[in-house]
Amino acid sequence: MSIVVQKYGGSSVADVEKIKNVARRVAKSRDEGNQVVVVVSAMGDTTDDLIALAKKVTAHPSGREYDLLLSTGELVSCTLLAMALNTIGYRAVSLSGAQAGIKTDTEYNRAHILGISPKRITEELNEGNVVIVAGFQGINKDKDVTTLGRGGSDTTAVALAISLKAKACHIYTDVDGVFTADPRMVPEAHSMPEIGYEEMLEMATYGARVMHSRAVELGQMYNMPILVACSFNENPGTLIHGGKAMEIKNKVTGIAHDMDIAKIMVVGVPDRPGIASAIFEPLATAGISVDTIVQNASIDNITDLTFTVAESDIDKAMKVVKPIAESIKARECISNTKLGEISIIGTGMQNAPGYAAKMFSALSERNINIHLITTSEIRITCIVDEDRVGEAVRALHRAFELEKADIR
Amino acid sequence: MSIVVQKYGGSSVADVEKIKNVARRVAKSRDEGNQVVVVVSAMGDTTDDLIALAKKVTAHPSGREYDLLLSTGELVSCTLLAMALNTIGYRAVSLSGAQAGIKTDTEYNRAHILGISPKRITEELNEGNVVIVAGFQGINKDKDVTTLGRGGSDTTAVALAISLKAKACHIYTDVDGVFTADPRMVPEAHSMPEIGYEEMLEMATYGARVMHSRAVELGQMYNMPILVACSFNENPGTLIHGGKAMEIKNKVTGIAHDMDIAKIMVVGVPDRPGIASAIFEPLATAGISVDTIVQNASIDNITDLTFTVAESDIDKAMKVVKPIAESIKARECISNTKLGEISIIGTGMQNAPGYAAKMFSALSERNINIHLITTSEIRITCIVDEDRVGEAVRALHRAFELEKADIR
Repeated sequence: MSIVVQKYGGSSVADVEKIKNVARRVAKSRDEGNQVVVVVSAMGDTTDDLIALAKKVTAHPSGREYDLLLSTGELVSCTLLAMALNTIGYRAVSLSGAQAGIKTDTEYNRAHILGISPKRITEELNEGNVVIVAGFQGINKDKDVTTLGRGGSDTTAVALAISLKAKACHIYTDVDGVFTADPRMVPEAHSMPEIGYEEMLEMATYGARVMHSRAVELGQMYNMPILVACSFNENPGTLIHGGKAMEIKNKVTGIAHDMDIAKIMVVGVPDRPGIASAIFEPLATAGISVDTIVQNASIDNITDLTFTVAESDIDKAMKVVKPIAESIKARECISNTKLGEISIIGTGMQNAPGYAAKMFSALSERNINIHLITTSEIRITCIVDEDRVGEAVRALHRAFELEKADIR
Repeated sequence: MSIVVQKYGGSSVADVEKIKNVARRVAKSRDEGNQVVVVVSAMGDTTDDLIALAKKVTAHPSGREYDLLLSTGELVSCTLLAMALNTIGYRAVSLSGAQAGIKTDTEYNRAHILGISPKRITEELNEGNVVIVAGFQGINKDKDVTTLGRGGSDTTAVALAISLKAKACHIYTDVDGVFTADPRMVPEAHSMPEIGYEEMLEMATYGARVMHSRAVELGQMYNMPILVACSFNENPGTLIHGGKAMEIKNKVTGIAHDMDIAKIMVVGVPDRPGIASAIFEPLATAGISVDTIVQNASIDNITDLTFTVAESDIDKAMKVVKPIAESIKARECISNTKLGEISIIGTGMQNAPGYAAKMFSALSERNINIHLITTSEIRITCIVDEDRVGEAVRALHRAFELEKADIR
């Protein structure tokens, strides 16, 4: 019998009726002759509620206590799912991260999986049980509970699939897979039948919320195909895989966007060594993640340094940067929070000229001003005014004819 | 340094403000130079909420899954308490039942503690931590989580106190200790300074809800003194102890009562061997607990059999008993749910005549009819009409002059 790992997100187990729906889906896979391992997230907003409770006690909870607290949410949903399976006649057993043998490092709140000892899971599967594993959690060398941070349950699922040599890893969510663009923004956006790991990573990093990049990276590292599909229907979803067998019909696969962008410009900076580190090291120390960095060509040994941060970090970032700007005798330091980011993503773009040009002309035709441009091998990103993002995404979706691509 | 075990019930940790209050109380004991182990119940109605959730999934949850589900409630409260202690400058660490080394049998939902391996607790205490243990839970030989059933957190606290050779075990609740009678019923009822284990057991079994008899039994077995006090004030509470040092001023210690009583009379039963087991074995199989049993003297080989069950069990019990009554050719089978039970409790009653007489005359003076009488070494119980229970408790409290006894 082959093993299938299925993961259901918080919206798929948000209430008892939805948990019963998941039980029926799991039962179906079992009936098809699979050994099934299910990973579940906490029900609906449970994790947020637990976080709110902790915040009422203290602004700075101990990582160890915080993780043990948060881990309870997944225990609730996995025991309820086991009961729901029992009720419809299927043997099932739920396991905490510790019982499932998920060993992590000791970085509370963002632990990494060091390895999985799947002995208990294998025993339970061989006894005919569906095995339900609490996602998002593990245990460290001190036998204390850790949590894996954002995207944690996806990571649990992919890691288990790899460790158990599963034939497939299915991530079930509340949307029909990975879309060519945000369907709330582009009416003709649609779910892709397949996407490569690299492209999916760019999509995830540049705004597509369907799956966390960390789990995709893990899948890529061990070449584990990941199907992202909806738990509320039978639509086929999107297969994330190694891409060698993929037939590339259109080199731009999808359009990602992100509204949570702010820009800081340090203007009139003397261009000498050490300036970049003088600015970016204190930002890193303050826990502020810097995305795009652009340094203009230097004129008379004076340059401008522009970079983006998350909009929610802007006040904290300006507090760090302003005194540094003064001390390095920069002319001024300006911030802009009314920005958004759009990216076109697709393999092979770098070797096929004209994609950047097509992107820029589609934007300029609509008088959308580009503040910053960055590129990777499979992505071109433009920072534009926030109130133009929707229009820009729609324009690019049409320019690259994504409405025609791979429609099933 | 000596070890103190403190247990806080659900009402003492019902919200974040109450948890902060508990943290201050724990801190005070730490400041007094104690090593402190704290056992907590789940916050307020959390356990009931989790039970309701499970009931929405299935009427018959798997014991294993049910226990893992219920165990999450105590994890939430113990992590929040650890955070609250950290916030006011005290080192604290919370432990699940498994981490605290609480080993149980495999009887899910009503597991018994087989032993405690307190290695982790001792290590954490020696590192200067307050140790907070999730009450009501343990781990069985299969490394699965079990829960201890009603009164579970009290049992956890007493067992830990014994295992750690603590100098005291404090049970904090929302009342000022063990009362001479229910203060909602008897205005002059008051908290007793002390009570013996045996008397406390009778009080608990016969209606006083302050502490579960199981934890008292454990305390008695290992001679561990247990202080029951209120978490919201500094009143001294009631010390439950071995009784040898107790000065007995008044042989009746307290009045217990229970409204949840129903009576079944099987009338006109042929008095031959095997009749009692023919009735009581099927009741036990159906999970119905029978309290008082009275069999009248047999006349012409015909007798009446009367017994009490919990009022909530009466329909189930009648369904079991009626067909048996017919098959053994009993004349009829009558139930009465409008009953209550009152008990006077005190050591030495059996050796001092006149207590029963005083009880009966106090009741008859008020025309309160007695349906049934049972006695133990330290208790006399009368079943009376439900609507007379309050009056009966007040009458007995006065007759035995409990308003004068041991008032501090």
